[in-house]
Formats: sequence, C-alpha cells, structure tokens
Amino acid sequence: MKNDLLRAVDSSPADWILLNLALSTMKMGGHRYGAFLDAATTAAKLAIYSTFVEQGNNIRKTGFLYHVEPKRVKAIVQEIQVALAEGQSLKVLNSKEPYYLIALPFLWQEHFPCAPGAARVRLQGLTPGERKTIEESLPSSAPKARILDQVEFAELMELLHQMSQEELPSSQRMPFSDALMLHIKFRLLHSGTVIQIDSPLVDIPLYALASESYSPKGEQERVFAMIDDVARFFSLLQAWVREDEGVLRGVEVFDVAPQDRKVALEELDAMLRAWADKYHQDGGLPMVLQFAAGRREHD
Amino acid sequence: MKNDLLRAVDSSPADWILLNLALSTMKMGGHRYGAFLDAATTAAKLAIYSTFVEQGNNIRKTGFLYHVEPKRVKAIVQEIQVALAEGQSLKVLNSKEPYYLIALPFLWQEHFPCAPGAARVRLQGLTPGERKTIEESLPSSAPKARILDQVEFAELMELLHQMSQEELPSSQRMPFSDALMLHIKFRLLHSGTVIQIDSPLVDIPLYALASESYSPKGEQERVFAMIDDVARFFSLLQAWVREDEGVLRGVEVFDVAPQDRKVALEELDAMLRAWADKYHQDGGLPMVLQFAAGRREHD
Repeated sequence: MKNDLLRAVDSSPADWILLNLALSTMKMGGHRYGAFLDAATTAAKLAIYSTFVEQGNNIRKTGFLYHVEPKRVKAIVQEIQVALAEGQSLKVLNSKEPYYLIALPFLWQEHFPCAPGAARVRLQGLTPGERKTIEESLPSSAPKARILDQVEFAELMELLHQMSQEELPSSQRMPFSDALMLHIKFRLLHSGTVIQIDSPLVDIPLYALASESYSPKGEQERVFAMIDDVARFFSLLQAWVREDEGVLRGVEVFDVAPQDRKVALEELDAMLRAWADKYHQDGGLPMVLQFAAGRREHD
Repeated sequence: MKNDLLRAVDSSPADWILLNLALSTMKMGGHRYGAFLDAATTAAKLAIYSTFVEQGNNIRKTGFLYHVEPKRVKAIVQEIQVALAEGQSLKVLNSKEPYYLIALPFLWQEHFPCAPGAARVRLQGLTPGERKTIEESLPSSAPKARILDQVEFAELMELLHQMSQEELPSSQRMPFSDALMLHIKFRLLHSGTVIQIDSPLVDIPLYALASESYSPKGEQERVFAMIDDVARFFSLLQAWVREDEGVLRGVEVFDVAPQDRKVALEELDAMLRAWADKYHQDGGLPMVLQFAAGRREHD
C-alpha cells in the first residue's frame, strides 16, 4: 500500500525517505504527528543556520538561498544560537520512543505494587473466585502489579505526563488534556504495554500492566535497528560526498536464479564477517560496514 | 559543524536522518525552505492515511494514535483521497532539482540564441573591442547564447516561473515576487548555471549562461547519488523489517590498522563485485546490494 501511495504522488527519493521516516517514527514508533512536524522544522532550521554560518553570517544571502524572509532568518538564527548556548531546547524526536512507553512500567510498579499473595484486583463487590478469574485472564508474562480501573489508570498517565514535562523548557511544555490522555492510552494498548480487560464480571474496563519494562520486540525492534542503520548509512555517505579518506560506497545490481538466492546471501554474510575479522586489529581506526541486499524495486 | 549542531541538541538517529535530508535537499539541492516543510507534512499525512486504512477507516482511533483531532484527520484523509483520485496534487519534492536549474539553460538558448558570428553582448554604446573583452571573460565551456542585462534576465526568470506553474494544481500556484526572483537568481548563480559579469566597461551587471544543460557535477552529483542510495537502503531495510524472504541486512564493526585501511577497502570492493558476478544470471530475480564502509563515529 505504501508503494501505491508513493506511485500515486510520483515522488522522488527524498520523498521516499521522508515517508519511510514518518511511518517509522509515528506509525510504528508512536511519536505524535506534531512531534514529527516539529522535528522536521528543527532540521530545516539547522540547515538554514549552517548556511548562515558558511555565508559569513549573511542574513540576506541566506534568506535568498532558502527563499525565507530576512527577519524570519534572523529569528531562526537566534533560536538556534540560544539552543546551542543553553543546550537541548529545540524540538526533536529525541527519544527513540515516546517517554510514556518507556517510563510507564516502572511508574506503575512503583505506585501500584502488589505484595506476594495479595490480590491484584482491589475492586469492591467481587468474590475471591471472580478476582482469580480476572487475574488468570492475564498472560503469564504480566508483572505482579495491581490491576487498575479507569480513574487510577488516568491518574497514572497524568503523573507520567507531568514528570516528563519537568525536563522540558517551559516554552515546550504541553498541558494535559483528555485528547492527550486518549493518545497515550491508545499507544500503550497498541504497543501491548498495557492490556484492557473487559470482564463480564465487572461493568467497567480494567487495565493491567503487560510487561515488566518496555522492550520493543519483533517488528518494532527491527524498526529501531532500521532507523539506526539508515542514520549510520547516511553519515557514511555524507563522508563519501565530502570525499573523506577511507570511505567506500557501492551498489551491486544483478539478477539471481531463484534457487541460488539463499546460498548467495549466506555466502555474502559469511564473507563480510570473515573480511572484518581478517582486518580487525585492536586499537586501530574505528570502522563500520553497513550493508543490505534484497529485491531490486526499480531499475 | 553539523556534528556540533547535532551533539548540541542531543538528537536521535531519526533527527540525524531529517537533518541530513534537510541539508541535502535545501542547502545542496536548492529546494526552498517552504518546499521541504510541505514535503515533510505530506509524508506525515500519508502515514496518517495509511493508519486510517489499516484501522478499518476509523477516524477516531487514527486521531488518538497520532494525537490529531478527528476533524483534522478527516480533512487529511479527504485531501489524500482526492490526490489519489486525480493524481499528483500533494506537495512533494518531486524533482531532484528545482525546475529552474533544469529548465533555464534550454529556455535561455531558445529565447536568446546567438547566431554564429553575431555578438553575444547587444548593449548600446560599447565598441566591438569592448564587446570582445566581455565575451572573452566567459569560460570556454559557456554555450553560445546572448549575454543578458538585469531586465532581460528577470523576464526570463519570470517566464520560467510561469511555465512551471502551469503544471501545478491552482491551489499550489505561487505568485511571482521580487523575493522569489532573488531566490531563483541566487540559486542559479550559486550553482554556477549562470555567471554574473561585473565589467568595468559597463555600469550595470550582465548575466551569461555558463552551461549547456544543467548537469550536477562533483559534490552535487554525489549528493543525488547519496539520496538515491539512502532511499534504496531504507527500502531494503523496510523489507527486512517485514521479514520478506531473500533480504540480508548487516553491520560489521571493527578496527583497522591505519596502514591496512586502503587495502581492506579495495579488497572489499573487488570481493563484492566478484560475488555479484558469480551469482548473476540473466532473467533471474532482480537484486541489489547497497553498502558503505568508513569511519565509525559513535559506538
């Protein structure tokens, strides 16, 4: 479907990178739409700032090159300079994962622990047997922590939000709202960090912590590795554009018989490991080789 | 300097990709600041649209996942649907290079040709000797086309702008303005497509076409190759995230003795070419191997 979208808009490789990044950070990673747009704007401002410095602090010329009004360039330059002086106040996607996916399991276990032998469900009006039925509906990997009702869960999300805001400069703080709470709740459920229990025994939804700590797994773990790989690959190619010494970049285009594909890729993997082992020498120049092989989409 | 900027803002790999993309498309490629932000917004909207479709056209749930108001989700979905139905009306970076860098040399030669033997400078009040002096200040590679004054050059840029606008849907058309003209002029001079001649013989600046057709060279050509490579690498890793068959992704981290580095990279290059040759079979599955090796920046 992504390919259909891109074909429909007839986009360039740069657009393809932007779309992959948008899908990885928001759809898979859980960042807000606004956070992605802010981060893209920050990247654009940093590009303007770097041109401004290279053009001998010439605001007019920088403005012409980017088609931005001089007074806007001036404001952008000042914003970056303040950020550089004070550190960390630009809007970026600075954690791999939004804070609540990482911090929630700790906070939940701290605020709603469950002593050995104690019931996880504290709801009034349930028999011990009914409590047990609800507890047993949880996956065995769920940590021993209390099961919460809607109000307790909402309070926990608000606390989580307040804690995260304390680290931000005041200009970037966001008030807690019902909409933000629903966003956090859906992301926690969507990622499998929290499970909603709709038991016929109680007429309100209950919420259980489903994992000890947030550890991306399966596809999500691969998404993070992918973003790291692409960032590193991009850096290597930047060094290649600058014609730095000791950089190699290459593409091999070929067709492979279907029955040979598996063997070919296994051989490639083993060959590259052997090559790195052969040249490895402790204390030498730090090097990295980044590679990917697969189906060729366009010629 | 870019590294300093990123260190100062303590960004994530996703931010690093965004910054590299901003530098490549705007600073090196000549796209406008507004065009980059529009393209990032389009990518974000496409991500929202793809979630909307996956969530069974559920606007509320999509809104919660991205923290976007339902009515805004609805507007975004409609915008994409119209674009898909009518084709090509989303704002993307859809040419590698802004149109004026590509189209200008053709238009200039068409509108201001210079017959063999005719003078390139038509300015009144110059002696044939003075004309010759100005013509001889041009690089030998400059095509045989008339040298223009400010007014003619401005008219040519306006014509170029009008032509480019005809292809756009009316909602995306931009009026021609002095600021836009200055942006185009600076980009043409900056890229070396046009040369400004400040001759002591005339009291106004003159403009000469410096290249037959826009052909990025040196660093700029490498920038385009880089964007293509990164886009393809990103696609290969997407296939790896989906666990498609026949995809290999890897990183080798090692240290190399300074005196071995050159040999090691040459060996790698030759080895990968030999590997692709060995498995190549006409008419087989189309494959691509993308690789880059160089200095390791962070551990």
